[in-house]
Amino acid sequence: MFITFEGIDGCGKSTQLILLKETLEQKGFKVITLREPGGTQLSEQIRDILLSNKSQINDISELLLFQAARANLVENIIKPALENDIFVLCDRFYDSTTAYQGYGRMIDLDIVKTCNIIAVNGLKPDLTFYLKLPLDVAKERSHKRDLDRIENAGDSFYKRVLLGYELIAREEPERIKIICSNGTIENTKNEILKNIPILNQ
Amino acid sequence: MFITFEGIDGCGKSTQLILLKETLEQKGFKVITLREPGGTQLSEQIRDILLSNKSQINDISELLLFQAARANLVENIIKPALENDIFVLCDRFYDSTTAYQGYGRMIDLDIVKTCNIIAVNGLKPDLTFYLKLPLDVAKERSHKRDLDRIENAGDSFYKRVLLGYELIAREEPERIKIICSNGTIENTKNEILKNIPILNQ
Repeated sequence: MFITFEGIDGCGKSTQLILLKETLEQKGFKVITLREPGGTQLSEQIRDILLSNKSQINDISELLLFQAARANLVENIIKPALENDIFVLCDRFYDSTTAYQGYGRMIDLDIVKTCNIIAVNGLKPDLTFYLKLPLDVAKERSHKRDLDRIENAGDSFYKRVLLGYELIAREEPERIKIICSNGTIENTKNEILKNIPILNQ
Repeated sequence: MFITFEGIDGCGKSTQLILLKETLEQKGFKVITLREPGGTQLSEQIRDILLSNKSQINDISELLLFQAARANLVENIIKPALENDIFVLCDRFYDSTTAYQGYGRMIDLDIVKTCNIIAVNGLKPDLTFYLKLPLDVAKERSHKRDLDRIENAGDSFYKRVLLGYELIAREEPERIKIICSNGTIENTKNEILKNIPILNQ
């Protein structure tokens, strides 16, 4: 099963991903956890370029770099793992690109979706958790001193990203579960676990 | 005017590009010369990744990285230059991607062409010179000690690339001029100059 976590920085994706990994491993499942962009030598190189505040990247190049990193991760790590019945939990996947580059950067959504399809070569998450949190709460929660290039994009960008996530989730309610991430870590965890079929049989 | 040079390594692209630049400058035109991938800070970083023999790049990521570099070059250098009536001469452009990633790597041609369109945002070379040379002659001419990652792809790859160039050129005979590059540098130069309308008025 391929499960992805989505939402803006500070929404609790990484924490919940680790908690789900522990729960699944306790039940005897094999699990790998990944983050996007990243997870292979090439994708980590691309990540460095994408997040560096020194990089001067136009919107279309940003989109294509995310997709290049994704294509490498899908082919080298995610597909082989799924073929070996390993659970794959990924911090961000193509919904991030639709939200950030499509709605945030305002690149034509058809272009973003076409690139998503080219990069993943038919792969689709079985389940996606969108951890929903208001922008001001997310900002309070992320205590980073140094913001990366994309985190530096500003509030109006992030408002469009949040609207984007809302619309993406509404388009595919079967796959994408909206989880209110405003409560305790334990509450959010329990909401997520309720939505994993294999843990509720 | 935007003029691109195409062909396999050793076919004389860089030499002819410089000769054309000199001729145009002697006639009083402003000219910039570029190479792909490259020409901006970002595109040169991507070039390093693409050509390094240490990089482990799957075909789709390779395609997307070339396009990311191209999109950055088009937006930051080529379009502004053309708007200022500067001649742009480019060593390789999207026909290389069709030939190398489409025919060479055998990525679906529709995917390659879709990505070409996304990267260039409507830009098209006014004129393209395909410098045609048999593979064995090209190999003799390139005396490099160290081949880069793409030059290392092997003869059967390069045979497909050559076939690809042939088909691409036949598809757009108005834009793409096939120049036999088997003769002297002077002969090839003269063939090229004959095809530049502004030099033959």
